[in-house]
Amino acid sequence: MSTEKERQEIESYFHEKIPLTRAMGVRVEAWDEERLVLTAPLEPNHNHLGTAFGGSLSAVATLAGYGMIWLTLGDKNGHVVIRDSAMRYRRPVRGEIRAVCRAPVADVMDPFKAEFANKGKAHLKLAVTIENGEAIDAATFEGTFVAMR
Amino acid sequence: MSTEKERQEIESYFHEKIPLTRAMGVRVEAWDEERLVLTAPLEPNHNHLGTAFGGSLSAVATLAGYGMIWLTLGDKNGHVVIRDSAMRYRRPVRGEIRAVCRAPVADVMDPFKAEFANKGKAHLKLAVTIENGEAIDAATFEGTFVAMR
Repeated sequence: MSTEKERQEIESYFHEKIPLTRAMGVRVEAWDEERLVLTAPLEPNHNHLGTAFGGSLSAVATLAGYGMIWLTLGDKNGHVVIRDSAMRYRRPVRGEIRAVCRAPVADVMDPFKAEFANKGKAHLKLAVTIENGEAIDAATFEGTFVAMR
Repeated sequence: MSTEKERQEIESYFHEKIPLTRAMGVRVEAWDEERLVLTAPLEPNHNHLGTAFGGSLSAVATLAGYGMIWLTLGDKNGHVVIRDSAMRYRRPVRGEIRAVCRAPVADVMDPFKAEFANKGKAHLKLAVTIENGEAIDAATFEGTFVAMR
């Protein structure tokens, strides 16, 4: 399956299965097996200060993690949950929210895939960077996701 | 000002200033100066598994922290931001989301208020518990908020 088709499928999956992603205007900007990039416009996600709401940043980062697991395993029907997460908010986001999740290196990803294939359950720690409009890191997320068959 | 009036005001403030709270259906259930309780229905906040989306839980918990700071300082015009947060997801939430933020003890709260009054800037760490429908802890949140005048 082409990555472009996967990109569209994961966006449709988000919108269909997680209705808040529609309200947030989440789009899948890019997926090339090394990174997944999600975006969301500021307007439905702003806070009392006119910058991006921390809860929106956390939600988009969480979605990027889910998407990375689904796309990596090629299995959206796998039962994926989040176990824990940590956010560090560094700078306000004054425009479009952009969440970049880079695939872990093979030394991390390969054992995750093997364990999922063999045991039907595996966990993976993923980092997501939230960029503001100027491609500067505005927030960082780290979360542990558990995939079960 | 009565706490009931404050309860209504903070709910209106959320809906007016942070539009995602309307999409999420966030309500202020209770505020009695010792705790702030927010709720959100499952329907607009469900995920691909039919349980509450982790991003919604994180967002409601973040809001509870903001609300606690605003209500404690009696000053919604203060510039409040979140610096960091950590979530631990323990059990799925299969019904209404309920976020309970208890006010820190006076030994913590009084210095925060004094520092904000004297220096115009202070930070406070707040814990929020997400309960599922059976009032059992489903997730815990800890976040550091910074208030500036």
